[in-house]
Amino acid sequence: MSSHIVTSYDQELQNLRRSIAEMGGIAEKMVADSGQALLRRDAALAQAVIAVDQRLDGLQREIEEKAILLIAKRQPMAVDLRETISAIRVSGDLERIGDLAKNVAKRVVAIADQVQLQKVVVGVEHMNELVQGQLKDVLDAYATQDTVAALDVWARDGGIDALYTSLFRELLTYMMEDPRNITFCTHLLFCAKNVERIGDHTTNIAETIHYLATGETLPTDRPKNDGSSFATLDPQPEA
Amino acid sequence: MSSHIVTSYDQELQNLRRSIAEMGGIAEKMVADSGQALLRRDAALAQAVIAVDQRLDGLQREIEEKAILLIAKRQPMAVDLRETISAIRVSGDLERIGDLAKNVAKRVVAIADQVQLQKVVVGVEHMNELVQGQLKDVLDAYATQDTVAALDVWARDGGIDALYTSLFRELLTYMMEDPRNITFCTHLLFCAKNVERIGDHTTNIAETIHYLATGETLPTDRPKNDGSSFATLDPQPEA
Repeated sequence: MSSHIVTSYDQELQNLRRSIAEMGGIAEKMVADSGQALLRRDAALAQAVIAVDQRLDGLQREIEEKAILLIAKRQPMAVDLRETISAIRVSGDLERIGDLAKNVAKRVVAIADQVQLQKVVVGVEHMNELVQGQLKDVLDAYATQDTVAALDVWARDGGIDALYTSLFRELLTYMMEDPRNITFCTHLLFCAKNVERIGDHTTNIAETIHYLATGETLPTDRPKNDGSSFATLDPQPEA
Repeated sequence: MSSHIVTSYDQELQNLRRSIAEMGGIAEKMVADSGQALLRRDAALAQAVIAVDQRLDGLQREIEEKAILLIAKRQPMAVDLRETISAIRVSGDLERIGDLAKNVAKRVVAIADQVQLQKVVVGVEHMNELVQGQLKDVLDAYATQDTVAALDVWARDGGIDALYTSLFRELLTYMMEDPRNITFCTHLLFCAKNVERIGDHTTNIAETIHYLATGETLPTDRPKNDGSSFATLDPQPEA
Protein backbone atom coordinates (compact mmCIF):
# COMPACT_ATOMS: atom_id res chain seq x y z
CA MET A 1 0.00 0.00 0.00
CA SER A 2 1.45 3.38 -0.93
CA SER A 3 1.51 5.97 1.83
CA HIS A 4 -0.71 8.08 -0.39
CA ILE A 5 -3.48 5.48 -0.22
CA VAL A 6 -2.99 5.02 3.52
CA THR A 7 -3.27 8.75 4.03
CA SER A 8 -6.46 9.14 2.01
CA TYR A 9 -7.86 6.07 3.77
CA ASP A 10 -7.15 7.61 7.16
CA GLN A 11 -8.72 10.75 5.77
CA GLU A 12 -11.92 8.89 5.01
CA LEU A 13 -11.97 7.36 8.50
CA GLN A 14 -11.43 10.85 9.92
CA ASN A 15 -14.42 12.11 7.92
CA LEU A 16 -16.57 9.31 9.36
CA ARG A 17 -15.45 10.25 12.88
CA ARG A 18 -16.27 13.89 12.20
CA SER A 19 -19.75 13.04 10.91
CA ILE A 20 -20.41 10.83 13.96
CA ALA A 21 -19.28 13.68 16.21
CA GLU A 22 -21.67 16.04 14.39
CA MET A 23 -24.54 13.56 14.82
CA GLY A 24 -23.64 13.19 18.49
CA GLY A 25 -23.74 16.93 19.02
CA ILE A 26 -27.15 17.24 17.38
CA ALA A 27 -28.55 14.26 19.32
CA GLU A 28 -27.25 15.63 22.65
CA LYS A 29 -28.89 18.99 21.96
CA MET A 30 -32.18 17.33 20.95
CA VAL A 31 -32.26 15.34 24.19
CA ALA A 32 -31.40 18.37 26.31
CA ASP A 33 -33.88 20.65 24.51
CA SER A 34 -36.72 18.11 24.63
CA GLY A 35 -36.18 17.84 28.40
CA GLN A 36 -36.19 21.62 28.82
CA ALA A 37 -39.28 21.91 26.58
CA LEU A 38 -41.03 19.36 28.81
CA LEU A 39 -39.99 21.09 32.02
CA ARG A 40 -41.24 24.48 30.83
CA ARG A 41 -44.06 23.17 28.58
CA ASP A 42 -42.32 25.16 25.81
CA ALA A 43 -44.08 24.23 22.55
CA ALA A 44 -41.81 26.46 20.44
CA LEU A 45 -38.66 24.72 21.70
CA ALA A 46 -40.39 21.35 21.17
CA GLN A 47 -41.18 22.28 17.56
CA ALA A 48 -37.51 23.17 17.05
CA VAL A 49 -36.50 19.70 18.29
CA ILE A 50 -39.00 18.10 15.90
CA ALA A 51 -37.67 20.18 13.00
CA VAL A 52 -33.97 19.33 13.48
CA ASP A 53 -34.52 15.55 13.42
CA GLN A 54 -34.42 15.44 9.61
CA ARG A 55 -30.83 16.63 9.68
CA LEU A 56 -29.92 13.68 11.89
CA ASP A 57 -31.66 11.24 9.53
CA GLY A 58 -29.76 12.68 6.58
CA LEU A 59 -26.41 12.38 8.34
CA GLN A 60 -27.10 8.78 9.27
CA ARG A 61 -27.79 7.78 5.66
CA GLU A 62 -24.68 9.66 4.56
CA ILE A 63 -22.48 7.89 7.13
CA GLU A 64 -23.93 4.49 6.24
CA GLU A 65 -23.29 5.00 2.53
CA LYS A 66 -19.76 6.35 3.05
CA ALA A 67 -18.88 3.52 5.43
CA ILE A 68 -20.16 0.82 3.06
CA LEU A 69 -18.30 2.33 0.11
CA LEU A 70 -15.18 2.54 2.27
CA ILE A 71 -15.44 -1.16 3.06
CA ALA A 72 -16.00 -2.06 -0.59
CA LYS A 73 -13.21 0.19 -1.85
CA ARG A 74 -10.53 -0.36 0.80
CA GLN A 75 -11.34 -3.81 2.16
CA PRO A 76 -10.21 -2.70 5.63
CA MET A 77 -9.13 -5.44 8.02
CA ALA A 78 -9.12 -5.88 11.80
CA VAL A 79 -9.53 -2.61 13.70
CA ASP A 80 -10.07 -0.53 10.54
CA LEU A 81 -12.96 -2.78 9.50
CA ARG A 82 -14.35 -2.67 13.03
CA GLU A 83 -14.17 1.12 13.11
CA THR A 84 -16.11 1.35 9.86
CA ILE A 85 -18.74 -1.12 11.11
CA SER A 86 -18.88 0.79 14.39
CA ALA A 87 -19.58 4.03 12.55
CA ILE A 88 -22.61 2.38 10.91
CA ARG A 89 -23.88 1.06 14.25
CA VAL A 90 -23.32 4.25 16.26
CA SER A 91 -24.95 6.42 13.59
CA GLY A 92 -27.97 4.10 13.74
CA ASP A 93 -28.23 4.48 17.51
CA LEU A 94 -27.85 8.27 17.30
CA GLU A 95 -30.58 8.43 14.66
CA ARG A 96 -32.92 6.46 16.97
CA ILE A 97 -32.01 8.70 19.91
CA GLY A 98 -33.07 11.67 17.79
CA ASP A 99 -36.39 9.95 16.98
CA LEU A 100 -37.04 9.35 20.67
CA ALA A 101 -36.22 12.95 21.63
CA LYS A 102 -38.55 14.04 18.81
CA ASN A 103 -41.29 11.83 20.27
CA VAL A 104 -40.85 13.52 23.65
CA ALA A 105 -41.10 16.88 21.89
CA LYS A 106 -44.37 15.82 20.19
CA ARG A 107 -45.83 14.96 23.59
CA VAL A 108 -44.75 18.36 24.90
CA VAL A 109 -46.72 20.02 22.09
CA ALA A 110 -49.76 17.98 23.17
CA ILE A 111 -49.55 19.03 26.84
CA ALA A 112 -47.99 22.46 26.44
CA ASP A 113 -51.09 24.29 27.67
CA GLN A 114 -51.40 22.15 30.81
CA VAL A 115 -49.65 23.19 33.99
CA GLN A 116 -50.07 20.44 36.57
CA LEU A 117 -48.12 17.86 38.57
CA GLN A 118 -44.86 19.77 38.10
CA LYS A 119 -43.29 17.45 40.70
CA VAL A 120 -43.52 14.40 38.44
CA VAL A 121 -42.56 16.46 35.37
CA VAL A 122 -39.40 17.34 37.28
CA GLY A 123 -38.91 13.62 37.91
CA VAL A 124 -39.06 12.82 34.20
CA GLU A 125 -36.73 15.73 33.40
CA HIS A 126 -34.32 14.49 36.10
CA MET A 127 -34.28 11.08 34.41
CA ASN A 128 -33.69 12.87 31.12
CA GLU A 129 -30.68 14.68 32.63
CA LEU A 130 -29.19 11.36 33.77
CA VAL A 131 -29.61 10.03 30.24
CA GLN A 132 -27.97 13.19 28.84
CA GLY A 133 -24.98 12.44 31.07
CA GLN A 134 -24.90 8.85 29.78
CA LEU A 135 -25.01 10.09 26.19
CA LYS A 136 -22.28 12.68 26.71
CA ASP A 137 -20.02 10.15 28.47
CA VAL A 138 -20.52 7.45 25.84
CA LEU A 139 -19.83 9.90 22.99
CA ASP A 140 -16.63 11.00 24.75
CA ALA A 141 -15.71 7.34 25.24
CA TYR A 142 -16.29 6.71 21.53
CA ALA A 143 -14.15 9.70 20.49
CA THR A 144 -11.29 8.59 22.76
CA GLN A 145 -11.98 4.84 22.36
CA ASP A 146 -12.09 4.58 26.15
CA THR A 147 -13.46 1.08 26.84
CA VAL A 148 -13.45 1.52 30.62
CA ALA A 149 -15.62 4.64 30.40
CA ALA A 150 -17.89 2.83 27.91
CA LEU A 151 -18.38 -0.13 30.26
CA ASP A 152 -19.18 2.33 33.05
CA VAL A 153 -22.02 3.81 30.96
CA TRP A 154 -23.14 0.29 30.10
CA ALA A 155 -23.35 -0.62 33.79
CA ARG A 156 -25.00 2.65 34.89
CA ASP A 157 -28.05 2.25 32.66
CA GLY A 158 -29.64 -0.08 35.21
CA GLY A 159 -30.15 2.93 37.50
CA ILE A 160 -32.09 4.75 34.81
CA ASP A 161 -34.29 1.70 34.25
CA ALA A 162 -35.03 1.55 37.98
CA LEU A 163 -35.89 5.27 38.03
CA TYR A 164 -38.23 4.74 35.08
CA THR A 165 -40.04 1.94 36.90
CA SER A 166 -40.62 4.13 39.97
CA LEU A 167 -41.85 7.03 37.79
CA PHE A 168 -44.17 4.60 36.02
CA ARG A 169 -45.74 3.61 39.36
CA GLU A 170 -45.91 7.23 40.54
CA LEU A 171 -47.70 8.29 37.36
CA LEU A 172 -50.23 5.46 37.67
CA THR A 173 -50.96 6.63 41.21
CA TYR A 174 -51.68 10.20 40.08
CA MET A 175 -53.98 8.86 37.37
CA MET A 176 -55.93 6.86 39.93
CA GLU A 177 -56.18 9.81 42.30
CA ASP A 178 -57.84 12.09 39.77
CA PRO A 179 -59.12 11.26 36.26
CA ARG A 180 -58.23 14.81 35.20
CA ASN A 181 -54.59 13.71 35.48
CA ILE A 182 -54.97 10.80 33.08
CA THR A 183 -54.30 12.43 29.70
CA PHE A 184 -51.40 14.43 31.07
CA CYS A 185 -49.87 11.47 32.92
CA THR A 186 -50.27 9.19 29.92
CA HIS A 187 -48.21 11.57 27.80
CA LEU A 188 -45.64 11.74 30.62
CA LEU A 189 -45.56 7.93 30.73
CA PHE A 190 -44.63 7.86 27.06
CA CYS A 191 -42.09 10.64 27.57
CA ALA A 192 -40.45 8.66 30.37
CA LYS A 193 -40.49 5.51 28.23
CA ASN A 194 -38.80 7.38 25.37
CA VAL A 195 -36.11 8.66 27.74
CA GLU A 196 -35.55 5.14 29.08
CA ARG A 197 -35.14 3.93 25.48
CA ILE A 198 -32.57 6.67 24.83
CA GLY A 199 -30.65 5.18 27.75
CA ASP A 200 -30.78 1.77 26.06
CA HIS A 201 -29.24 3.25 22.92
CA THR A 202 -26.39 4.78 24.94
CA THR A 203 -25.63 1.26 26.18
CA ASN A 204 -25.73 0.00 22.58
CA ILE A 205 -23.07 2.58 21.75
CA ALA A 206 -21.06 1.44 24.78
CA GLU A 207 -21.25 -2.12 23.46
CA THR A 208 -20.06 -0.93 20.05
CA ILE A 209 -17.06 0.81 21.66
CA HIS A 210 -16.17 -2.46 23.41
CA TYR A 211 -16.48 -4.32 20.09
CA LEU A 212 -14.37 -1.67 18.35
CA ALA A 213 -11.57 -1.97 20.91
CA THR A 214 -11.60 -5.73 21.46
CA GLY A 215 -13.35 -7.27 18.47
CA GLU A 216 -15.52 -9.08 20.99
CA THR A 217 -19.23 -8.70 21.62
CA LEU A 218 -20.61 -8.11 25.10
CA PRO A 219 -23.29 -10.54 26.32
CA THR A 220 -26.69 -9.54 24.94
CA ASP A 221 -28.35 -10.19 28.28
CA ARG A 222 -27.32 -7.04 30.14
CA PRO A 223 -29.14 -7.25 33.49
CA LYS A 224 -31.99 -4.73 33.14
CA ASN A 225 -33.88 -3.15 36.03
CA ASP A 226 -36.83 -2.03 33.95
CA GLY A 227 -39.60 -3.83 35.82
CA SER A 228 -42.29 -1.53 34.49
CA SER A 229 -43.39 -3.93 31.77
CA PHE A 230 -44.24 -6.34 34.54
CA ALA A 231 -45.49 -3.71 36.97
CA THR A 232 -49.05 -3.73 38.16
CA LEU A 233 -50.63 -1.44 40.69
CA ASP A 234 -53.83 -2.02 42.63
CA PRO A 235 -56.12 1.02 42.37
CA GLN A 236 -57.14 0.37 45.95
CA PRO A 237 -56.02 -2.05 48.68
CA GLU A 238 -57.85 -5.36 48.68
CA ALA A 239 -60.94 -5.17 50.86
CA MET B 1 -13.92 -13.19 -12.60
CA SER B 2 -13.88 -16.97 -12.84
CA SER B 3 -17.27 -18.66 -12.82
CA HIS B 4 -16.12 -20.44 -9.66
CA ILE B 5 -15.91 -17.14 -7.79
CA VAL B 6 -19.22 -15.95 -9.23
CA THR B 7 -20.88 -19.17 -8.11
CA SER B 8 -19.54 -19.03 -4.55
CA TYR B 9 -20.44 -15.33 -4.42
CA ASP B 10 -24.03 -16.10 -5.44
CA GLN B 11 -23.92 -18.87 -2.85
CA GLU B 12 -23.05 -16.33 -0.14
CA LEU B 13 -25.88 -14.04 -1.26
CA GLN B 14 -28.21 -17.04 -1.18
CA ASN B 15 -27.13 -17.77 2.40
CA LEU B 16 -27.92 -14.18 3.37
CA ARG B 17 -31.37 -14.48 1.78
CA ARG B 18 -31.97 -17.74 3.64
CA SER B 19 -30.98 -16.21 6.98
CA ILE B 20 -33.25 -13.20 6.38
CA ALA B 21 -36.10 -15.59 5.55
CA GLU B 22 -35.45 -17.47 8.79
CA MET B 23 -35.48 -14.21 10.76
CA GLY B 24 -38.70 -13.20 9.00
CA GLY B 25 -40.38 -16.47 9.95
CA ILE B 26 -39.38 -16.11 13.60
CA ALA B 27 -40.48 -12.46 13.72
CA GLU B 28 -43.85 -13.26 12.11
CA LYS B 29 -44.48 -16.00 14.67
CA MET B 30 -43.46 -13.73 17.56
CA VAL B 31 -45.90 -11.03 16.41
CA ALA B 32 -48.73 -13.55 15.92
CA ASP B 33 -48.08 -15.33 19.23
CA SER B 34 -47.80 -12.11 21.23
CA GLY B 35 -51.18 -11.04 19.81
CA GLN B 36 -52.76 -14.39 20.70
CA ALA B 37 -51.17 -14.29 24.16
CA LEU B 38 -52.71 -10.84 24.67
CA LEU B 39 -56.13 -11.92 23.41
CA ARG B 40 -56.23 -14.96 25.73
CA ARG B 41 -54.10 -13.46 28.54
CA ASP B 42 -51.86 -16.52 28.03
CA ALA B 43 -48.75 -15.97 30.17
CA ALA B 44 -47.14 -19.25 29.06
CA LEU B 45 -47.36 -18.31 25.38
CA ALA B 46 -46.06 -14.83 26.27
CA GLN B 47 -43.04 -16.37 28.04
CA ALA B 48 -42.35 -18.44 24.93
CA VAL B 49 -42.31 -15.25 22.82
CA ILE B 50 -39.90 -13.63 25.30
CA ALA B 51 -37.63 -16.68 25.20
CA VAL B 52 -37.32 -16.93 21.40
CA ASP B 53 -36.16 -13.31 20.98
CA GLN B 54 -32.51 -14.21 21.69
CA ARG B 55 -32.48 -16.41 18.58
CA LEU B 56 -33.51 -13.41 16.50
CA ASP B 57 -30.76 -11.24 18.03
CA GLY B 58 -28.17 -13.91 17.26
CA LEU B 59 -29.29 -14.22 13.64
CA GLN B 60 -29.13 -10.45 13.18
CA ARG B 61 -25.51 -10.25 14.37
CA GLU B 62 -24.64 -13.22 12.18
CA ILE B 63 -26.20 -11.62 9.08
CA GLU B 64 -24.51 -8.28 9.77
CA GLU B 65 -21.09 -9.91 10.12
CA LYS B 66 -21.53 -12.10 7.03
CA ALA B 67 -22.76 -9.16 4.95
CA ILE B 68 -19.85 -6.90 5.98
CA LEU B 69 -17.29 -9.64 5.26
CA LEU B 70 -18.98 -10.23 1.91
CA ILE B 71 -18.60 -6.55 1.02
CA ALA B 72 -14.97 -6.49 2.14
CA LYS B 73 -14.10 -9.74 0.36
CA ARG B 74 -16.06 -9.39 -2.88
CA GLN B 75 -16.38 -5.62 -3.29
CA PRO B 76 -19.82 -6.11 -4.84
CA MET B 77 -21.07 -3.31 -7.10
CA ALA B 78 -24.49 -1.95 -8.05
CA VAL B 79 -27.35 -4.32 -7.25
CA ASP B 80 -25.11 -6.87 -5.50
CA LEU B 81 -23.83 -4.20 -3.13
CA ARG B 82 -27.37 -2.95 -2.59
CA GLU B 83 -28.60 -6.46 -1.80
CA THR B 84 -25.88 -6.89 0.80
CA ILE B 85 -26.64 -3.50 2.37
CA SER B 86 -30.35 -4.35 2.28
CA ALA B 87 -29.71 -7.59 4.16
CA ILE B 88 -28.08 -5.57 6.95
CA ARG B 89 -30.98 -3.10 7.07
CA VAL B 90 -33.79 -5.68 6.92
CA SER B 91 -32.17 -7.86 9.59
CA GLY B 92 -32.00 -4.76 11.81
CA ASP B 93 -35.71 -4.07 11.32
CA LEU B 94 -36.64 -7.71 11.98
CA GLU B 95 -34.57 -7.68 15.18
CA ARG B 96 -36.45 -4.57 16.35
CA ILE B 97 -39.79 -6.14 15.42
CA GLY B 98 -38.86 -9.08 17.64
CA ASP B 99 -38.02 -6.70 20.51
CA LEU B 100 -41.40 -4.99 20.15
CA ALA B 101 -43.30 -8.30 20.09
CA LYS B 102 -41.31 -9.31 23.18
CA ASN B 103 -42.36 -6.06 24.87
CA VAL B 104 -46.02 -6.86 24.15
CA ALA B 105 -45.44 -10.33 25.63
CA LYS B 106 -43.95 -8.78 28.80
CA ARG B 107 -47.09 -6.66 29.21
CA VAL B 108 -49.23 -9.78 28.78
CA VAL B 109 -47.36 -11.41 31.68
CA ALA B 110 -48.18 -8.33 33.78
CA ILE B 111 -51.92 -8.40 33.04
CA ALA B 112 -52.39 -12.15 32.53
CA ASP B 113 -54.56 -12.53 35.62
CA GLN B 114 -56.89 -9.68 34.68
CA VAL B 115 -59.98 -10.35 32.59
CA GLN B 116 -61.59 -7.03 31.71
CA LEU B 117 -62.39 -4.75 28.79
CA GLN B 118 -62.12 -7.63 26.32
CA LYS B 119 -63.61 -5.33 23.67
CA VAL B 120 -60.58 -3.05 23.60
CA VAL B 121 -58.19 -6.01 23.90
CA VAL B 122 -59.83 -7.32 20.74
CA GLY B 123 -59.21 -3.89 19.19
CA VAL B 124 -55.48 -4.07 19.94
CA GLU B 125 -55.31 -7.66 18.67
CA HIS B 126 -57.13 -6.57 15.50
CA MET B 127 -54.50 -3.89 14.96
CA ASN B 128 -51.87 -6.56 15.60
CA GLU B 129 -53.42 -8.75 12.88
CA LEU B 130 -53.27 -5.88 10.38
CA VAL B 131 -49.59 -5.45 11.22
CA GLN B 132 -49.03 -9.19 10.80
CA GLY B 133 -50.48 -8.87 7.30
CA GLN B 134 -48.15 -5.93 6.59
CA LEU B 135 -45.17 -7.95 7.81
CA LYS B 136 -46.09 -11.04 5.77
CA ASP B 137 -46.65 -8.97 2.62
CA VAL B 138 -43.40 -7.02 2.98
CA LEU B 139 -41.38 -10.20 3.59
CA ASP B 140 -42.94 -11.75 0.47
CA ALA B 141 -42.15 -8.56 -1.45
CA TYR B 142 -38.55 -8.77 -0.24
CA ALA B 143 -38.19 -12.42 -1.26
CA THR B 144 -39.60 -11.71 -4.73
CA GLN B 145 -38.15 -8.17 -4.94
CA ASP B 146 -41.66 -6.92 -5.76
CA THR B 147 -41.40 -3.11 -5.53
CA VAL B 148 -45.09 -2.55 -6.25
CA ALA B 149 -46.16 -4.78 -3.36
CA ALA B 150 -43.57 -3.08 -1.15
CA LEU B 151 -44.91 0.39 -1.96
CA ASP B 152 -48.41 -0.88 -1.20
CA VAL B 153 -47.29 -1.90 2.32
CA TRP B 154 -45.54 1.46 2.66
CA ALA B 155 -48.78 3.31 1.81
CA ARG B 156 -51.05 1.09 3.96
CA ASP B 157 -49.24 1.82 7.22
CA GLY B 158 -51.14 5.09 7.56
CA GLY B 159 -54.29 3.09 8.29
CA ILE B 160 -52.60 1.32 11.19
CA ASP B 161 -51.42 4.65 12.61
CA ALA B 162 -54.98 5.97 12.43
CA LEU B 163 -56.31 2.86 14.18
CA TYR B 164 -53.69 3.30 16.89
CA THR B 165 -54.78 6.89 17.49
CA SER B 166 -58.43 5.85 17.92
CA LEU B 167 -57.44 3.01 20.29
CA PHE B 168 -55.36 5.51 22.25
CA ARG B 169 -58.40 7.77 22.73
CA GLU B 170 -60.66 4.81 23.56
CA LEU B 171 -58.24 3.57 26.23
CA LEU B 172 -57.99 7.02 27.81
CA THR B 173 -61.78 7.09 28.02
CA TYR B 174 -61.93 3.75 29.87
CA MET B 175 -59.26 4.99 32.28
CA MET B 176 -61.30 8.10 33.03
CA GLU B 177 -64.49 6.09 33.50
CA ASP B 178 -63.06 3.87 36.23
CA PRO B 179 -59.67 4.11 37.99
CA ARG B 180 -59.63 0.32 38.30
CA ASN B 181 -59.07 0.26 34.52
CA ILE B 182 -55.95 2.42 34.67
CA THR B 183 -53.19 -0.15 35.20
CA PHE B 184 -54.71 -2.53 32.68
CA CYS B 185 -55.33 0.18 30.07
CA THR B 186 -51.84 1.62 30.53
CA HIS B 187 -50.30 -1.74 29.66
CA LEU B 188 -52.68 -1.97 26.67
CA LEU B 189 -51.60 1.53 25.58
CA PHE B 190 -47.97 0.37 25.50
CA CYS B 191 -48.97 -2.85 23.71
CA ALA B 192 -50.79 -0.82 21.05
CA LYS B 193 -47.79 1.53 20.75
CA ASN B 194 -45.45 -1.45 20.26
CA VAL B 195 -47.72 -2.84 17.54
CA GLU B 196 -47.79 0.56 15.83
CA ARG B 197 -43.97 0.62 15.91
CA ILE B 198 -43.87 -2.85 14.34
CA GLY B 199 -45.90 -1.33 11.51
CA ASP B 200 -43.27 1.40 11.15
CA HIS B 201 -40.55 -1.24 10.76
CA THR B 202 -42.54 -3.00 8.02
CA THR B 203 -42.52 0.31 6.14
CA ASN B 204 -38.74 0.57 6.70
CA ILE B 205 -38.39 -2.84 5.04
CA ALA B 206 -40.62 -1.64 2.18
CA GLU B 207 -38.30 1.36 1.76
CA THR B 208 -35.30 -0.98 1.69
CA ILE B 209 -36.94 -3.08 -1.05
CA HIS B 210 -37.45 0.08 -3.11
CA TYR B 211 -33.80 1.03 -2.57
CA LEU B 212 -32.69 -2.49 -3.47
CA ALA B 213 -34.63 -2.43 -6.75
CA THR B 214 -33.99 1.16 -7.82
CA GLY B 215 -30.92 2.35 -5.90
CA GLU B 216 -33.02 5.33 -4.88
CA THR B 217 -34.24 6.32 -1.43
CA LEU B 218 -37.89 7.09 -0.75
CA PRO B 219 -38.66 10.44 0.88
CA THR B 220 -38.11 10.22 4.65
CA ASP B 221 -41.29 12.17 5.31
CA ARG B 222 -43.88 9.48 4.73
CA PRO B 223 -47.24 11.06 5.65
CA LYS B 224 -48.09 9.54 9.04
CA ASN B 225 -51.56 9.41 10.57
CA ASP B 226 -50.36 8.78 14.10
CA GLY B 227 -51.91 11.75 15.83
CA SER B 228 -51.77 10.14 19.25
CA SER B 229 -48.60 11.97 20.28
CA PHE B 230 -50.58 15.16 19.86
CA ALA B 231 -53.87 13.75 21.16
CA THR B 232 -55.47 15.18 24.26
CA LEU B 233 -58.77 14.23 25.78
CA ASP B 234 -60.80 16.21 28.26
CA PRO B 235 -61.83 14.11 31.24
CA GLN B 236 -65.11 15.99 31.31
CA PRO B 237 -66.85 18.52 29.06
CA GLU B 238 -65.98 22.14 29.82
CA ALA B 239 -68.39 23.56 32.39
